[in-house]
Amino acid sequence: MTFERENVRRMAGYVPGEQPRRAVAKLNTNENPFPPCDAVLATLAGIDGEMLRRYPDPTAWGFRTAAARLHGLTPDHIVATNGGDELLRLALTTFLPPGAPLGLAEPSYSLYPVLAAVHDSPLCPVPLADDWSVPADIARQWNRAGARLAILVNPHAPSGRLTAAQELAEVARTFKGVLVIDEAYIDFVDPGIAHDTIALVREADNVLLLRTMSKGYSLAGLRLGYGIGSPGLVSPMLSKTKDSYNVDVVAQRVGETALRHNWEAAERWAFVREERSRMARELSVRGLICAPSQANFLLATMTSRPPGTARRLLRELADEGIFVRWFDQERLRDSLRISLGRAAENDALLAAFDRLLPQPS
Amino acid sequence: MTFERENVRRMAGYVPGEQPRRAVAKLNTNENPFPPCDAVLATLAGIDGEMLRRYPDPTAWGFRTAAARLHGLTPDHIVATNGGDELLRLALTTFLPPGAPLGLAEPSYSLYPVLAAVHDSPLCPVPLADDWSVPADIARQWNRAGARLAILVNPHAPSGRLTAAQELAEVARTFKGVLVIDEAYIDFVDPGIAHDTIALVREADNVLLLRTMSKGYSLAGLRLGYGIGSPGLVSPMLSKTKDSYNVDVVAQRVGETALRHNWEAAERWAFVREERSRMARELSVRGLICAPSQANFLLATMTSRPPGTARRLLRELADEGIFVRWFDQERLRDSLRISLGRAAENDALLAAFDRLLPQPS
Repeated sequence: MTFERENVRRMAGYVPGEQPRRAVAKLNTNENPFPPCDAVLATLAGIDGEMLRRYPDPTAWGFRTAAARLHGLTPDHIVATNGGDELLRLALTTFLPPGAPLGLAEPSYSLYPVLAAVHDSPLCPVPLADDWSVPADIARQWNRAGARLAILVNPHAPSGRLTAAQELAEVARTFKGVLVIDEAYIDFVDPGIAHDTIALVREADNVLLLRTMSKGYSLAGLRLGYGIGSPGLVSPMLSKTKDSYNVDVVAQRVGETALRHNWEAAERWAFVREERSRMARELSVRGLICAPSQANFLLATMTSRPPGTARRLLRELADEGIFVRWFDQERLRDSLRISLGRAAENDALLAAFDRLLPQPS
Repeated sequence: MTFERENVRRMAGYVPGEQPRRAVAKLNTNENPFPPCDAVLATLAGIDGEMLRRYPDPTAWGFRTAAARLHGLTPDHIVATNGGDELLRLALTTFLPPGAPLGLAEPSYSLYPVLAAVHDSPLCPVPLADDWSVPADIARQWNRAGARLAILVNPHAPSGRLTAAQELAEVARTFKGVLVIDEAYIDFVDPGIAHDTIALVREADNVLLLRTMSKGYSLAGLRLGYGIGSPGLVSPMLSKTKDSYNVDVVAQRVGETALRHNWEAAERWAFVREERSRMARELSVRGLICAPSQANFLLATMTSRPPGTARRLLRELADEGIFVRWFDQERLRDSLRISLGRAAENDALLAAFDRLLPQPS
């Protein structure tokens, strides 16, 4: 006998990228290649038994204050979450009645459809253009389907493409529900672009930005993310729908330090951007064409290779201890998503390609 | 304009107990009075930047293995959660179709109705007897209402009363849905009673036990709990409905050490039991009658005092830096729930009662 709800019984779960114990190059789950800064480690070392013994601040006031200061907002614009994943789930719980469709762009982060299945909501997926740009009528398509919540990841995963803030503003103005912009990779955007979505939060009461400390701040192990939105969007998540003590004391303290030392993280972002340019060039020399990426990964597409090459490479690379990601999904089967690692890891990948992938003649 | 779902708009959130910065005696949220053992702090000190940088094990294998060993089960009987709260939420998400009622006993932990409101499910609350015992027909009442999930907290909160395992087995046999037994306080049960609910998990495929590291293991700040149930109950939570990386690396590692050193925690439990007996006696001398408790708190009821005395005491004690809990709820308004603290904290409370509450003549 099973006690599962019907929708849960029917669905398949999310499959996270592999976490191998040892790797020559772990380029499969978009982690930051560098550990967090010394100030963060010092804060961790300062956690004592008394802090562990007591319940944490249920509203993560210190962390939210630091985030608000960083973005020029007030803490009532911020909700701290157990990783960005929790914010996504809370957005569904708070704003989407089960049964109402979730608006998506396709392809995107494969967790979104899983969350919709758990919530028992159908999808309204709108295909991205060939260059992974967002169709101009995406909000109208979502509106027609009756979507009350929609999620766009920007920079886009798995391509890395950045949609401009003014295009997002237009989507938000047209869409009649809550627009979540999943900015998991925003820290890696070239500062020369001056991409600013905080302005959007001030203008639009239906925009919820997702930030995570996992990638930009090298804290994937800690599970800490946050939402940025109008107080009207943030308040019900903060006071009603999140678990009472959703973020532990270690994440709150360490995360606050990380934000207050964000210039140290920014040095790592600059390194990732340099490697991004170098790797895109080196991969293209090897016949792998990368979509222009503003994230900490590249989507490298095999050109002039037989179908199945990407999948074969995934396995052959893994045999050498080099882990990248491949998606068994339309429009993605000829590509590998490659996280940008340390220079030595990236070089190891290039060397492996030279062995495994004969130069196109 | 509001974007909240109708059920979220209507509901009020859970109000956690106050977390004062400084307290003479903090006896309001049932924390363990002692910090975790040295081995736990040593594991915390061993967390390095590399562990923070990478995603944690999504299934918390090491922690689940330690829990399984402790209980004489296999890891497929265990799901690790971000505090016990997450397990409660997952039980609703996984087993209760929104709209179907949640079975409860009344009074109990005030979070349960909040979770039901978020889930958009009505309640089927069955009043406990005057001695806080569970009515023999509770499962039949839940069945008649069509409940697919029910929660009993045992030892009971806020009274501390323990329902015997064989009574629970009878409830589980009769109830047609999933029975969650919230064992947040089970570590404080007198070992002489030989209360064993693990046997229940082996016999009944509809029983899910909730354990938390918050109280017994002095880790409230870390957010770590776990569920124990048949693999058929555990599997959908583990692979489908929980957030992908729901428990961070610090909680996994530290929690595993805590379980492997559980005899050190057991020394603290023995101290709490001694204080529990002493305080029940001392409070009764002062005209506060305590229900027999197997938890780390006492529900002390004012006798021969004017109505409003408990509420007045709550405020007057807080003015002195002594924090206890009062519930504005039927059958509880004449009582204070008092966590068992260190001897000096407990003494401070008794001395305050002597000042604030003249001896009954």
